[in-house]
Amino acid sequence: MSLISNTPKPPYYAVIFTSLRTNIEDGYGEMANEMMALAAIQPGFLGVESARESIGITVSYWESLEAIKNWKSNPAHLQAQKLGKDKWYSAYTTRIVKVEKEYRFNELL
Amino acid sequence: MSLISNTPKPPYYAVIFTSLRTNIEDGYGEMANEMMALAAIQPGFLGVESARESIGITVSYWESLEAIKNWKSNPAHLQAQKLGKDKWYSAYTTRIVKVEKEYRFNELL
Repeated sequence: MSLISNTPKPPYYAVIFTSLRTNIEDGYGEMANEMMALAAIQPGFLGVESARESIGITVSYWESLEAIKNWKSNPAHLQAQKLGKDKWYSAYTTRIVKVEKEYRFNELL
Repeated sequence: MSLISNTPKPPYYAVIFTSLRTNIEDGYGEMANEMMALAAIQPGFLGVESARESIGITVSYWESLEAIKNWKSNPAHLQAQKLGKDKWYSAYTTRIVKVEKEYRFNELL
Protein backbone atom coordinates (compact mmCIF):
# COMPACT_ATOMS: atom_id res chain seq x y z
CA MET A 1 0.00 0.00 0.00
CA SER A 2 3.05 2.25 -0.06
CA LEU A 3 2.65 4.74 -2.93
CA ILE A 4 4.37 7.88 -4.09
CA SER A 5 3.63 10.61 -1.54
CA ASN A 6 1.54 13.49 -2.81
CA THR A 7 3.75 16.17 -1.26
CA PRO A 8 3.17 19.94 -1.63
CA LYS A 9 5.20 22.45 -3.59
CA PRO A 10 8.71 22.72 -2.08
CA PRO A 11 10.30 23.71 0.18
CA TYR A 12 9.48 21.06 2.76
CA TYR A 13 11.61 18.55 4.70
CA ALA A 14 12.30 14.84 4.69
CA VAL A 15 14.03 12.12 6.67
CA ILE A 16 15.86 9.49 4.63
CA PHE A 17 16.26 6.41 6.84
CA THR A 18 18.46 3.72 5.27
CA SER A 19 18.94 0.49 7.21
CA LEU A 20 20.42 -3.00 7.25
CA ARG A 21 18.41 -5.57 9.22
CA THR A 22 19.76 -8.21 11.56
CA ASN A 23 18.07 -11.60 11.11
CA ILE A 24 16.02 -11.08 14.29
CA GLU A 25 12.29 -10.79 13.58
CA ASP A 26 10.81 -10.65 17.12
CA GLY A 27 8.06 -8.08 16.50
CA TYR A 28 9.86 -6.07 13.82
CA GLY A 29 7.05 -6.11 11.21
CA GLU A 30 4.39 -5.14 13.74
CA MET A 31 6.54 -2.33 15.11
CA ALA A 32 7.35 -1.02 11.62
CA ASN A 33 3.62 -0.88 10.79
CA GLU A 34 2.82 0.70 14.14
CA MET A 35 5.45 3.41 13.65
CA MET A 36 4.23 4.17 10.10
CA ALA A 37 0.69 4.59 11.46
CA LEU A 38 1.86 6.70 14.40
CA ALA A 39 4.02 8.93 12.17
CA ALA A 40 1.03 9.51 9.89
CA ILE A 41 -0.98 11.18 12.66
CA GLN A 42 1.80 13.53 13.83
CA PRO A 43 1.50 17.28 13.22
CA GLY A 44 3.29 18.31 10.04
CA PHE A 45 3.40 14.80 8.51
CA LEU A 46 3.17 14.91 4.69
CA GLY A 47 3.73 11.31 3.61
CA VAL A 48 6.02 8.27 3.70
CA GLU A 49 7.58 6.00 1.09
CA SER A 50 9.28 2.72 1.92
CA ALA A 51 10.93 -0.28 0.23
CA ARG A 52 13.33 -3.02 1.32
CA GLU A 53 15.58 -5.36 -0.70
CA SER A 54 19.23 -5.78 0.32
CA ILE A 55 18.79 -2.49 2.17
CA GLY A 56 15.69 -0.76 3.46
CA ILE A 57 14.92 2.84 2.54
CA THR A 58 12.13 4.78 4.24
CA VAL A 59 11.61 8.43 3.33
CA SER A 60 9.16 10.41 5.45
CA TYR A 61 8.11 13.92 4.45
CA TRP A 62 7.40 16.79 6.88
CA GLU A 63 6.32 20.42 6.83
CA SER A 64 9.17 21.64 9.01
CA LEU A 65 12.30 20.72 10.97
CA GLU A 66 10.24 21.28 14.10
CA ALA A 67 7.81 18.53 13.03
CA ILE A 68 10.77 16.16 12.48
CA LYS A 69 12.21 17.00 15.90
CA ASN A 70 8.86 16.33 17.56
CA TRP A 71 8.52 12.97 15.84
CA LYS A 72 12.10 12.02 16.76
CA SER A 73 11.32 12.62 20.44
CA ASN A 74 7.85 11.00 20.50
CA PRO A 75 7.94 8.57 23.49
CA ALA A 76 6.64 5.51 21.61
CA HIS A 77 9.03 6.28 18.77
CA LEU A 78 11.97 6.64 21.18
CA GLN A 79 11.18 3.17 22.54
CA ALA A 80 11.06 1.80 18.97
CA GLN A 81 14.40 3.47 18.19
CA LYS A 82 15.97 1.78 21.23
CA LEU A 83 14.66 -1.65 20.20
CA GLY A 84 15.88 -0.97 16.67
CA LYS A 85 19.44 -0.45 17.89
CA ASP A 86 19.27 -3.35 20.33
CA LYS A 87 17.97 -6.03 18.00
CA TRP A 88 16.50 -5.18 14.58
CA TYR A 89 19.19 -3.15 12.80
CA SER A 90 22.87 -3.93 12.29
CA ALA A 91 23.40 -0.47 10.80
CA TYR A 92 21.42 2.55 9.77
CA THR A 93 21.84 6.12 8.62
CA THR A 94 19.32 8.90 9.18
CA ARG A 95 19.60 11.96 6.95
CA ILE A 96 17.63 15.14 7.56
CA VAL A 97 17.10 16.95 4.26
CA LYS A 98 15.41 20.00 2.81
CA VAL A 99 13.46 19.31 -0.40
CA GLU A 100 14.24 22.15 -2.80
CA LYS A 101 12.69 20.97 -6.08
CA GLU A 102 10.22 18.31 -7.16
CA TYR A 103 9.35 16.93 -10.62
CA ARG A 104 6.49 14.53 -11.28
CA PHE A 105 5.51 12.19 -14.10
CA ASN A 106 2.30 10.19 -14.27
CA GLU A 107 1.24 8.48 -17.51
CA LEU A 108 -2.43 8.81 -16.52
CA LEU A 109 -2.34 12.61 -16.17
CA MET B 1 25.36 -5.15 -3.51
CA SER B 2 23.57 -1.93 -2.63
CA LEU B 3 24.74 -0.79 0.81
CA ILE B 4 24.42 2.31 2.94
CA SER B 5 26.41 5.06 1.22
CA ASN B 6 29.44 6.31 3.11
CA THR B 7 28.65 9.98 2.53
CA PRO B 8 30.75 12.88 3.91
CA LYS B 9 29.84 15.33 6.63
CA PRO B 10 26.85 17.47 5.49
CA PRO B 11 25.99 19.64 3.71
CA TYR B 12 25.78 17.74 0.43
CA TYR B 13 22.92 17.03 -1.99
CA ALA B 14 20.75 14.11 -3.00
CA VAL B 15 18.15 13.05 -5.55
CA ILE B 16 15.26 10.96 -4.23
CA PHE B 17 13.74 9.11 -7.19
CA THR B 18 10.53 7.25 -6.30
CA SER B 19 8.87 5.23 -9.03
CA LEU B 20 6.08 2.85 -9.97
CA ARG B 21 6.94 0.35 -12.69
CA THR B 22 4.78 -0.71 -15.61
CA ASN B 23 4.86 -4.47 -16.25
CA ILE B 24 7.13 -3.98 -19.26
CA GLU B 25 10.60 -5.49 -18.74
CA ASP B 26 12.23 -4.97 -22.18
CA GLY B 27 15.75 -4.08 -21.03
CA TYR B 28 14.78 -2.37 -17.78
CA GLY B 29 17.13 -4.31 -15.49
CA GLU B 30 20.12 -3.86 -17.79
CA MET B 31 19.43 -0.15 -18.18
CA ALA B 32 19.02 0.33 -14.42
CA ASN B 33 22.39 -1.36 -13.82
CA GLU B 34 24.00 0.62 -16.63
CA MET B 35 22.73 3.93 -15.23
CA MET B 36 23.92 3.07 -11.69
CA ALA B 37 27.39 2.32 -13.10
CA LEU B 38 27.41 5.47 -15.24
CA ALA B 39 26.23 7.67 -12.34
CA ALA B 40 29.05 6.27 -10.19
CA ILE B 41 31.75 7.65 -12.49
CA GLN B 42 30.29 11.17 -12.78
CA PRO B 43 32.10 14.11 -11.14
CA GLY B 44 30.70 14.84 -7.69
CA PHE B 45 29.03 11.43 -7.21
CA LEU B 46 29.03 10.34 -3.55
CA GLY B 47 26.94 7.16 -3.50
CA VAL B 48 23.62 5.52 -4.30
CA GLU B 49 21.09 3.47 -2.34
CA SER B 50 18.22 1.59 -3.95
CA ALA B 51 15.35 -0.79 -3.09
CA ARG B 52 12.09 -1.83 -4.75
CA GLU B 53 8.96 -3.47 -3.33
CA SER B 54 5.52 -2.02 -4.20
CA ILE B 55 7.44 1.17 -5.07
CA GLY B 56 11.06 1.72 -6.01
CA ILE B 57 13.20 4.24 -4.17
CA THR B 58 16.65 5.24 -5.42
CA VAL B 59 18.59 7.89 -3.55
CA SER B 60 21.77 9.19 -5.17
CA TYR B 61 24.13 11.49 -3.28
CA TRP B 62 26.12 14.34 -4.83
CA GLU B 63 28.64 17.01 -3.83
CA SER B 64 26.71 19.89 -5.40
CA LEU B 65 23.60 20.95 -7.33
CA GLU B 66 25.92 21.46 -10.30
CA ALA B 67 26.88 17.76 -10.22
CA ILE B 68 23.18 16.81 -10.17
CA LYS B 69 22.45 19.11 -13.11
CA ASN B 70 25.31 17.60 -15.10
CA TRP B 71 24.10 14.07 -14.43
CA LYS B 72 20.52 15.02 -15.35
CA SER B 73 21.71 16.25 -18.76
CA ASN B 74 24.18 13.42 -19.48
CA PRO B 75 23.28 12.20 -23.03
CA ALA B 76 23.06 8.47 -22.18
CA HIS B 77 21.03 9.35 -19.08
CA LEU B 78 18.67 11.58 -21.12
CA GLN B 79 18.02 8.63 -23.43
CA ALA B 80 17.32 6.38 -20.42
CA GLN B 81 14.95 9.01 -18.99
CA LYS B 82 13.02 9.07 -22.27
CA LEU B 83 12.69 5.26 -22.35
CA GLY B 84 11.66 5.36 -18.69
CA LYS B 85 8.71 7.65 -19.48
CA ASP B 86 7.82 5.77 -22.67
CA LYS B 87 7.71 2.25 -21.27
CA TRP B 88 9.19 1.41 -17.85
CA TYR B 89 7.49 3.78 -15.40
CA SER B 90 3.79 4.50 -14.91
CA ALA B 91 4.64 7.29 -12.47
CA TYR B 92 7.66 8.78 -10.76
CA THR B 93 8.69 11.70 -8.61
CA THR B 94 12.17 13.20 -8.52
CA ARG B 95 13.06 15.32 -5.50
CA ILE B 96 16.22 17.41 -5.29
CA VAL B 97 17.26 17.82 -1.68
CA LYS B 98 19.98 19.32 0.47
CA VAL B 99 21.23 17.01 3.23
CA GLU B 100 21.58 19.10 6.37
CA LYS B 101 22.28 16.49 9.08
CA GLU B 102 23.33 12.88 9.20
CA TYR B 103 23.32 10.33 12.06
CA ARG B 104 24.85 6.87 11.83
CA PHE B 105 24.58 3.66 13.80
CA ASN B 106 26.65 0.53 13.20
CA GLU B 107 26.67 -2.30 15.73
CA LEU B 108 30.19 -3.29 14.66
CA LEU B 109 31.72 0.12 15.41
